[in-house]
Amino acid sequence: MAREIVECVPNFSEGRRKEVVDAIADAIRSVPGTKLLDVEMDANHNRAVVTFIGDRNAVAEAAFRGAEKAVAVIDLTVHKGEHPRIGALDVCPFVPVSGVTMEDCVAIARTVGERIARELKVPVYLYEEAATRPDRRALPDIRKGEFEGLREEIKTNPERAPDFGPRQLHPTAGASVVGARAPLIAFNVNLGTPDVQIAKKIAHAIRESSGGLKYVRAKGFALKDRGIVQVSINMVNYKGTPLFRAYELIKAEAERYGVPIVGSEIVGLVPLEAVVDSAGFYLKLENFKVEQILETRLWE
Amino acid sequence: MAREIVECVPNFSEGRRKEVVDAIADAIRSVPGTKLLDVEMDANHNRAVVTFIGDRNAVAEAAFRGAEKAVAVIDLTVHKGEHPRIGALDVCPFVPVSGVTMEDCVAIARTVGERIARELKVPVYLYEEAATRPDRRALPDIRKGEFEGLREEIKTNPERAPDFGPRQLHPTAGASVVGARAPLIAFNVNLGTPDVQIAKKIAHAIRESSGGLKYVRAKGFALKDRGIVQVSINMVNYKGTPLFRAYELIKAEAERYGVPIVGSEIVGLVPLEAVVDSAGFYLKLENFKVEQILETRLWE
Repeated sequence: MAREIVECVPNFSEGRRKEVVDAIADAIRSVPGTKLLDVEMDANHNRAVVTFIGDRNAVAEAAFRGAEKAVAVIDLTVHKGEHPRIGALDVCPFVPVSGVTMEDCVAIARTVGERIARELKVPVYLYEEAATRPDRRALPDIRKGEFEGLREEIKTNPERAPDFGPRQLHPTAGASVVGARAPLIAFNVNLGTPDVQIAKKIAHAIRESSGGLKYVRAKGFALKDRGIVQVSINMVNYKGTPLFRAYELIKAEAERYGVPIVGSEIVGLVPLEAVVDSAGFYLKLENFKVEQILETRLWE
Repeated sequence: MAREIVECVPNFSEGRRKEVVDAIADAIRSVPGTKLLDVEMDANHNRAVVTFIGDRNAVAEAAFRGAEKAVAVIDLTVHKGEHPRIGALDVCPFVPVSGVTMEDCVAIARTVGERIARELKVPVYLYEEAATRPDRRALPDIRKGEFEGLREEIKTNPERAPDFGPRQLHPTAGASVVGARAPLIAFNVNLGTPDVQIAKKIAHAIRESSGGLKYVRAKGFALKDRGIVQVSINMVNYKGTPLFRAYELIKAEAERYGVPIVGSEIVGLVPLEAVVDSAGFYLKLENFKVEQILETRLWE
C-alpha cells in the first residue's frame, strides 16, 4: 500500500526578514512525521512559500503550528509587498500525493481551518476543493480588496462572511484561506522592461478569468530591485494547461511589445511530469515515458 | 553507504524479431540481483538496446548470459540494417550509477570481455574507459568496416587485433566491444525529408570527429518505412554538451536545407539532469534545482 503522503504549501506574508520565516519553518518542522522540503522567500512579493510533507495527522498539526507562529510574528498593518494578501498565513493548501484522496485533504483543510479560527481568532475561508460556495473556489476571488479592503467588508458584506471564525479580521494577522487542491506550479516569467503595465497587460491576456488560458492565474509585478517586471503565474492544472503553453503564450504577447523574456523561475516544488512535458515539447520528443528517466527506476 | 548499482546497456544486432530479443532479455533477467529496465528495438537500425542494473557481480553474470544467447541466435551473415555493427552482441558498456567507481566498471568490463572471448570464441575489443589504446577508445574507430570488413582485416592488420580472443571473427557472431563509460544519451532527431544525404551532411556537421560539437557522435540514416531521415546521435557527455545544444545545432543546419525537424526520440534511459537541463534551457529557468522536483524528495 502506498505510503501516506500529504503535501502542504503554506504561503506567509513575510519575504524579507529571514529570522521570521525561519521561526515559522522551525515551528512546522518541530512536528515528528513531517519533512520540510523547501522554503522560498521573495523580497519583492514580500512573501514566503514553505513546502512540507508528512502523514495527514502530522501535516495538520504542523500547519497549525506554522499558522500560530505566523500570527505571532507577522503584522499586516505594516506589510507592503507586490503580492496580494489577506493574512499573515495567507493561504494553506493541502495536496494529496500518495495514499490519500482529495476528500481526505478536504477533511484536513476543514479541521485545520476550524482550529485556526477557534484558537487563533483568525477568520478562515475554505477554498478550491474545500470551498463551501462556487464563488469561493478561487483564491483571487476570496482575496479581493486584500487585507485593507477586507477589514471593512467582512463586517458589512454578507458575501464576505468567513467559513470559520468571527466576522472580523484579526487586527494584525488578517484572515487565512485554507483548502485542498491538486498540485500547482508557481511559475514566474521575467520581462526585460521596467514597464509594469506590460506585465499587467500580458497577465490579463493569459489568465483564465479575463479570457486567456484555462487553469492559469496571473498577475503583473514590478521587480524594483532589478529594474524589470514579472508575470507571476499559478498553473492550477499542469496536465490541462502545461508550463510550456503558458510560456509560449507569454512569449508571443511579449513580442507584441518588443520585450524579451529574460528569465523565469519555478517557485517551490514542481511535479516531475511537468518538467518532462516541457523538455518533450521543445525537443519534439515522441513516445517518451517518464520511466525512461534512470533515477525513477532506482526509487522502485 | 550508497546501494551498489552498475548499469549495463548491451546493444544487440537484432531489431525486427521480437522473439529473439525476448530470449536475450530473458537470459539477462534470469540472474538474481539484476533488474531489467528497458528493451528498445529499432527495425530500421535492426538493433536492440537493453538496459539493466544490479550489483557488480549480478550485472557481470547477466551480461555474459546475454552475450551467450545473442551468439546462439543472431547470424550476422544475414543481418542487414541501418546501424553499423561488428557483432551479435555489438557493444556492452558498464556504467557506474552508485556505490561503484569507473575503475570498478573497467574491471567488470575486463572480466566479462575475457570470459566472452574464452567461452564463446568471440574476439573482444575493450573501449572507452577500459580501452587499452587511445585509438581504441571510440566505438566508431573499432567498428570501421563493420562485420564484413573486419572479417578480413582482423587476420591481416595488426592494428585490428582484439584485446581478448582469437584473431578471427566468430563466423556468425562477429566480435564484441566491451567497456566502461559515463552515462550516454542515445538521441535521434527525425527530419521531414526523404533525402538521406541531408541527414548525413548534418550528422557530419555536428559530430565531434569531423569538427562539430565535442562529445557528440552522429550518423545519418534513412527511415525507409516512414519516408523520412534521421540524425542518430550518441551524446557521450551530456554535462559537457547537453541535449538541447545538439538539438539547436541540428535545427540550424536543417534550416539551411529548408527541412523541418518533425520529431525526436530518446532511446533507452536518460539521466534526470539531462531532461531538466533541457526544460530549463527552453523555459529560461533561473536557479532551478533538481531537488525542486517533488518526486526526488519522496524517495529520500
